[in-house]
Amino acid sequence: MTDVPTDRAASLADVVNLADFEPLARATMEPRAFDYVAGGAWDEITLADNEAAWRRRRLRPRVLVDVSQVDPSTTMLGAPTSMPLAVAPMAAHGLAHPDAEVATARAAAAAGVPFTLSTLSTRSIEEVASAAPDGTRWFQLYTQADPGRTQEVVQRVAAAGYTAIVLTVDLPLLGYRERDRRTGFDLVGPHGNFATSSTGATHAGGIHAGGIHARTDGFAMLAEQILTGLSWDDLERIRSWSSLPLVLKGILTSEDARLAVDHGVDAVVVSNHGGRQLDRVTATADVLEEVVQAVDGRSEVWVDGGVRRGLDIAIAVILGARGVLVGKPLFWALAAGGQTGVERALAILREEFEIALALLGTPTPTDLRPSHIAIERTRAGT
Amino acid sequence: MTDVPTDRAASLADVVNLADFEPLARATMEPRAFDYVAGGAWDEITLADNEAAWRRRRLRPRVLVDVSQVDPSTTMLGAPTSMPLAVAPMAAHGLAHPDAEVATARAAAAAGVPFTLSTLSTRSIEEVASAAPDGTRWFQLYTQADPGRTQEVVQRVAAAGYTAIVLTVDLPLLGYRERDRRTGFDLVGPHGNFATSSTGATHAGGIHAGGIHARTDGFAMLAEQILTGLSWDDLERIRSWSSLPLVLKGILTSEDARLAVDHGVDAVVVSNHGGRQLDRVTATADVLEEVVQAVDGRSEVWVDGGVRRGLDIAIAVILGARGVLVGKPLFWALAAGGQTGVERALAILREEFEIALALLGTPTPTDLRPSHIAIERTRAGT
Amino acid sequence: MTDVPTDRAASLADVVNLADFEPLARATMEPRAFDYVAGGAWDEITLADNEAAWRRRRLRPRVLVDVSQVDPSTTMLGAPTSMPLAVAPMAAHGLAHPDAEVATARAAAAAGVPFTLSTLSTRSIEEVASAAPDGTRWFQLYTQADPGRTQEVVQRVAAAGYTAIVLTVDLPLLGYRERDRRTGFDLVGPHGNFATSSTGATHAGGIHAGGIHARTDGFAMLAEQILTGLSWDDLERIRSWSSLPLVLKGILTSEDARLAVDHGVDAVVVSNHGGRQLDRVTATADVLEEVVQAVDGRSEVWVDGGVRRGLDIAIAVILGARGVLVGKPLFWALAAGGQTGVERALAILREEFEIALALLGTPTPTDLRPSHIAIERTRAGT
Amino acid sequence: MTDVPTDRAASLADVVNLADFEPLARATMEPRAFDYVAGGAWDEITLADNEAAWRRRRLRPRVLVDVSQVDPSTTMLGAPTSMPLAVAPMAAHGLAHPDAEVATARAAAAAGVPFTLSTLSTRSIEEVASAAPDGTRWFQLYTQADPGRTQEVVQRVAAAGYTAIVLTVDLPLLGYRERDRRTGFDLVGPHGNFATSSTGATHAGGIHAGGIHARTDGFAMLAEQILTGLSWDDLERIRSWSSLPLVLKGILTSEDARLAVDHGVDAVVVSNHGGRQLDRVTATADVLEEVVQAVDGRSEVWVDGGVRRGLDIAIAVILGARGVLVGKPLFWALAAGGQTGVERALAILREEFEIALALLGTPTPTDLRPSHIAIERTRAGT
Repeated sequence: MTDVPTDRAASLADVVNLADFEPLARATMEPRAFDYVAGGAWDEITLADNEAAWRRRRLRPRVLVDVSQVDPSTTMLGAPTSMPLAVAPMAAHGLAHPDAEVATARAAAAAGVPFTLSTLSTRSIEEVASAAPDGTRWFQLYTQADPGRTQEVVQRVAAAGYTAIVLTVDLPLLGYRERDRRTGFDLVGPHGNFATSSTGATHAGGIHAGGIHARTDGFAMLAEQILTGLSWDDLERIRSWSSLPLVLKGILTSEDARLAVDHGVDAVVVSNHGGRQLDRVTATADVLEEVVQAVDGRSEVWVDGGVRRGLDIAIAVILGARGVLVGKPLFWALAAGGQTGVERALAILREEFEIALALLGTPTPTDLRPSHIAIERTRAGT
Repeated sequence: MTDVPTDRAASLADVVNLADFEPLARATMEPRAFDYVAGGAWDEITLADNEAAWRRRRLRPRVLVDVSQVDPSTTMLGAPTSMPLAVAPMAAHGLAHPDAEVATARAAAAAGVPFTLSTLSTRSIEEVASAAPDGTRWFQLYTQADPGRTQEVVQRVAAAGYTAIVLTVDLPLLGYRERDRRTGFDLVGPHGNFATSSTGATHAGGIHAGGIHARTDGFAMLAEQILTGLSWDDLERIRSWSSLPLVLKGILTSEDARLAVDHGVDAVVVSNHGGRQLDRVTATADVLEEVVQAVDGRSEVWVDGGVRRGLDIAIAVILGARGVLVGKPLFWALAAGGQTGVERALAILREEFEIALALLGTPTPTDLRPSHIAIERTRAGT
Repeated sequence: MTDVPTDRAASLADVVNLADFEPLARATMEPRAFDYVAGGAWDEITLADNEAAWRRRRLRPRVLVDVSQVDPSTTMLGAPTSMPLAVAPMAAHGLAHPDAEVATARAAAAAGVPFTLSTLSTRSIEEVASAAPDGTRWFQLYTQADPGRTQEVVQRVAAAGYTAIVLTVDLPLLGYRERDRRTGFDLVGPHGNFATSSTGATHAGGIHAGGIHARTDGFAMLAEQILTGLSWDDLERIRSWSSLPLVLKGILTSEDARLAVDHGVDAVVVSNHGGRQLDRVTATADVLEEVVQAVDGRSEVWVDGGVRRGLDIAIAVILGARGVLVGKPLFWALAAGGQTGVERALAILREEFEIALALLGTPTPTDLRPSHIAIERTRAGT
Repeated sequence: MTDVPTDRAASLADVVNLADFEPLARATMEPRAFDYVAGGAWDEITLADNEAAWRRRRLRPRVLVDVSQVDPSTTMLGAPTSMPLAVAPMAAHGLAHPDAEVATARAAAAAGVPFTLSTLSTRSIEEVASAAPDGTRWFQLYTQADPGRTQEVVQRVAAAGYTAIVLTVDLPLLGYRERDRRTGFDLVGPHGNFATSSTGATHAGGIHAGGIHARTDGFAMLAEQILTGLSWDDLERIRSWSSLPLVLKGILTSEDARLAVDHGVDAVVVSNHGGRQLDRVTATADVLEEVVQAVDGRSEVWVDGGVRRGLDIAIAVILGARGVLVGKPLFWALAAGGQTGVERALAILREEFEIALALLGTPTPTDLRPSHIAIERTRAGT
């Protein structure tokens, strides 16, 4: 009936929501790199469903609650955050902006939210730490075939003041990513111009991920160097390398959620790797309650995938998440405006979330309850 | 299979249904003002779902009933109305037509339906009262930070012959309205050229809402002056200011419906503010039964949001509503043709509703029963 | 994935399915008359849903059944028919072709299926009878305000060898038909050039339906002359006028189905008047089982609305219908090719139905059982 | 949100998924022949739903499983296959490529998957056997009106080293295929230029299927020569003609599945003939579990229809299938690149399936369990 204006932001000053950053990023980034970040696996069904699943939920707002004092802050793993959100680990911020992870980490610190550095970063562990010394910093870990090198990385991370290890468990090998197969994009090859990496090695034109040899000729090679045989038995060893809390990222079933808390992890992240690994996996919003029930309070539950709105954050918390990880839209914001862009994106999410709290009649995240969402009688699929 | 003619009304004389008014209004109104009225919050999911939810319902008509005498009239809060419908409160009719609320109120009176004046009106409480002295008039109230000013408004309303207070409870602050953020539209700023307001103050180019200082610089300012801390405890005080019946507008849950009747309100309006406040809220048609069950006859239940057809009115009454409030399409009708336009819109709704009553085998609104609608086995979402 | 050829039949010789007739008819008919026939009430939701509902059903074919002898014939009201189908009553075949009902009735007789003459026909009761003396002919009755004139019509019908009265019970007044309101089409006015009517009166440029005065100025007038006060109590009187079996057309609920058989009717037609009366009524395919269960074998159950394929006929019989009535596509066929067109349409339906019987493993209509359809876990709505 | 690149493969070298072969085939094949292969029956609802049904399912991947050794191989009817897949029987590979079934059979043998020769093949039983002597070869059988000729075919098949008979039970006559009716395509007429057939007869411009007289004038004629009276009682006789295992292809209900295993068949194929016979039949993915439950391990269950991705194979095995048959995309691959094209298609499916196994945490097909799929609360229909 009504016509939504189709004009999108022509520049950073015009940005109104996180979707506005994407065309700006597209105009800035190398096309193959843009597609690498934007794309998902196979038919990109889960990629699309992740976003759609948040939008399918229906809210039940309460009225005549005093919301003169709204406070969106909370903690994640004990670390204070200005809202229930942290920056998700993403490879190679240098694809978006020359300041790379330094800009993103500074923006996160300025906004008061935790930042997660990827193993596959453009900048080194220590460089990011010194650039944002006051922000909460976590480190995303891929285990490598050589356990000694992985241990070395963990110890450097702890020494540099990162306060949690986020172990990615859904990438024993790369998903079937058709965009990259069509464009020939190669993160660790000539198209990925990284000067440095989180693990400190320096190469022109290559990424150096904790012993992963640079200038390999493609994702397949990259995948080979990740430990495909990682299993639950390895967790104890990884935990022994540092006193840092351990977060498992990539949990999608109640069965694995129970195993995770049985193995003493401090948080699980309900994640399907942004739809980039196995396609047709249930959207994270649709599986969140199952995991929350299985965990039953024994660890924190976080969620990522398709979070684009403050409303998504509210829904995630209603469904039992302690917080969300946001990735791709912040990457677009970084491409569109460097640190300023990421700060603007985080400010929008915070404003949206604050308004959502007020209009839900829930002044703080802890006021959000399952009763604030309508019971879904069907799973809508795609 | 069949092709619906796409020709729409080129002028008021060609109008066949309420949707025909919208393009006429768009051609007449200042574009930013049009978008202000047309738009919803965030992704406008609830804005669209409000209309769709009425259309998803399926009717069960009865036959061989004597419908030679169809009478669509009923009462709302005891006031007779020619059909189960009242004009919803809407801000600033002056955006649509220079006659503003005077034209709308006169059309409502001519059609025999109640008219609700908004706190944020272009014309004053008394001016509207004297323009339509014989019509049923209600007053929509926003509580202001200064309780004294709110009390003063209520007392003026009672003195001017308005017969109910419709307290809006879903606007502690403004929803995230992207259209206005993109266009820069500002209801109380230079784009809103109101000469007077419901509360009698007079400014060139500004709206003066019961003590809300005119010429503020935007919605944020407007929102600040509304009492964000309003709570159930305040209802008793508001009721004490007059003997007028109190209606709560913005109820969307059984929990709040029970609280409302426990606090003695005379009617609740199932409303999500036309999708303009919190997005992803359940469509009002989908939540109506829940509220009706919770109220259990202890007050009237009204509903607004997406009502565009006499069929929608029939469905609302079938689901347990005493009547509906209609807003936006009457605004378009006002823009398209002033008082004549609104009268035409109301005449269409009445004709549609009468035909629906006859074809359902229900000569009067009280004949409409839950059995006239098919049981929905699913909630369709968007 | 695959591309369905978009080429449609350019002429009668190219017609492959019933949908092919529509563009041919559109090219032939006066545009307002075409829209009158093609259109439905209000938003045409039920018009579209009628067709979609048949297509939503999923079949369960059985294999290794001997289908070397497929026989699609059956009876309806005891009259033999070459397949479970009769021609639905439709007003004014003269809008499609100068041979009008004479051509349609002859085609039906040639195909061995019953033909239903409308009260609002172009040709008279007796003329159609003498044109197709060997075919089964039924008469659709609208009751008029003057019971004497209705009685007179019934007695002429019986005298002319029609073998059933199909009483339409869902038209106490006309639905809200927007196409006609936009085009100004008037069945009984100058656009409907009928020379004669089923009741024998003759006027230039007007339709004369059993005492309905011709040259009225529109549908409203027409509707007024139909008895809006018809009720269950009147059925006994109508039955007393002749010994013909009585069929009620327009039943959509179990409640009315039970009342119908309690009143001794010989068949009920599950019908929403092709979506032309009350919009948002459940599609006939979706309500058929409810009616069949309520009737419980005490009368035949027929169904119309959206039947376009032999597969639709099979589904209707699976769901418990004795037969279907087909209307609009035969009207298009009449416009496209007169009697030859209608014969072609009926031949396609019969071939489709025969193939469906063979592929379902059900050599005759009586072999079709509820187990041949998958249980619908949801009602899909629109 | 994201834009999937629309560029498709311009040549065989660019092919990334099986859908890429279709436009290449379209550019190569005679248009009527392309439509014959691409098309389905009636409205092609089941044709589309077959593919969609696999995509509607949602996977539940397990993590931290050692997937360093993924082995996709299994057996079908005891024959080893490099993945749970065999080439489906398809008529007349000569429509795609002059090497016809010889190319396809060689590609299958090279990929280590079984090949099924159609009764309606371009090349003879013996020619295909000698072209791919080491591959597993099965023979699809249509029974002919003359049982002696059918017996003769079976005995030739056994002598030529084919190791199973796949009896098609869903084609007592041809479905209503509108594309062919529009184009006039005739498999056994002048448009189908086959030099030889599986049964050894040789004609210019005709197909000779085990005694089916060539140069008939259309599908109807072809259909007539297939035994329409085949029933369960005939199975014993067919089994007596050879010691080959018997597979029934075209089972869609639990009832027929039970009859099949009661009659001692070695495998049933859940199939709706690729949507080419009866339209509106349930998608095979949606009926697979019903058949698996009914068979209860007494025979193997295979499935075909809409399998386009390694993910589809994984879902089929999760739902209880021993393996899938893939048809149309291999036909396109044959048209696009002969034997090389088919090998490329099979390599893609195998790579996709291997990645799926790794990402599901299931190193072998036998690890796939019902718990790897989310419970569907609704059947989505089309």
